Amino acid sequence: MTVNEIKSLIDRSLFASLGYTDENGRQNIRRVFCVWHRGLGTHLISTNTSSSHVKSIINSGNACLYFSDDSTFEAVCLFGNAVISTDRKHKELLWNEGDEKYYPNGIDDEDYCVIVFSADSGRYYRYDGKADLSADEITEFDKECRLENGYFKTHS
Amino acid sequence: MTVNEIKSLIDRSLFASLGYTDENGRQNIRRVFCVWHRGLGTHLISTNTSSSHVKSIINSGNACLYFSDDSTFEAVCLFGNAVISTDRKHKELLWNEGDEKYYPNGIDDEDYCVIVFSADSGRYYRYDGKADLSADEITEFDKECRLENGYFKTHS
Repeated sequence: MTVNEIKSLIDRSLFASLGYTDENGRQNIRRVFCVWHRGLGTHLISTNTSSSHVKSIINSGNACLYFSDDSTFEAVCLFGNAVISTDRKHKELLWNEGDEKYYPNGIDDEDYCVIVFSADSGRYYRYDGKADLSADEITEFDKECRLENGYFKTHS
Repeated sequence: MTVNEIKSLIDRSLFASLGYTDENGRQNIRRVFCVWHRGLGTHLISTNTSSSHVKSIINSGNACLYFSDDSTFEAVCLFGNAVISTDRKHKELLWNEGDEKYYPNGIDDEDYCVIVFSADSGRYYRYDGKADLSADEITEFDKECRLENGYFKTHS
């Protein structure tokens, strides 16, 4: 896969799978809405501050983020680090009309936060082969990128 | 979700996501075909012995197996242990016509093996709530179960 094909897979995805180790030392996966990206390296996910995967990530940010399309047999696993952001800019950016049903106090709801996942490398899988995505490839690709809603861009 | 609803989610799935820590200490996810199950606790996956996730699992069997249906917002994460089996019974059971294209030497191909995942607990997620699946619930449910192809059973 080229970096553009990997980016296309990420952009058209509505969900990704976040892999991490939880406080009990167990391997854990959480399916998350993930549509805000900066290139290949930065991915934002809105979630409840009180949820168990947020506690796990505060404990250890070592994580992976997996995008896949079962219909085309394409997948990419990004390896890196996740941190919890309560930066108002992030919270405003990811806020959608109607999110009050999840966060009654709106954008400033203390139970509303954003997971910022930063990839330092990756590995992609397709019917025609698999290979590593290097830190240099991610840095080079991301130079010209800004934070945008890839799903909206692809489907609008 | 009831245990029967969890079982139905697992049975109708063609793929699952295997979460583990790789030899570099990175969190890693691999999308796998996973259709052979014994109840809720045992899941078999055929794969290439030479693949990187097999090496990781030999190094540490601490793993999770995640089944999800994005269209119904149902998911279950099973926590447990993965081991590599080269038992001929397992290899015969999971062999499909045409698998020679992956394993030219047939069932006895040394590059063909089976990952046996055993769950000791789990956690399920649905629009109407999330909760733990205990070891006792798995043991109780699995008493009457035998190893079978859940996907085939559901879709035939």
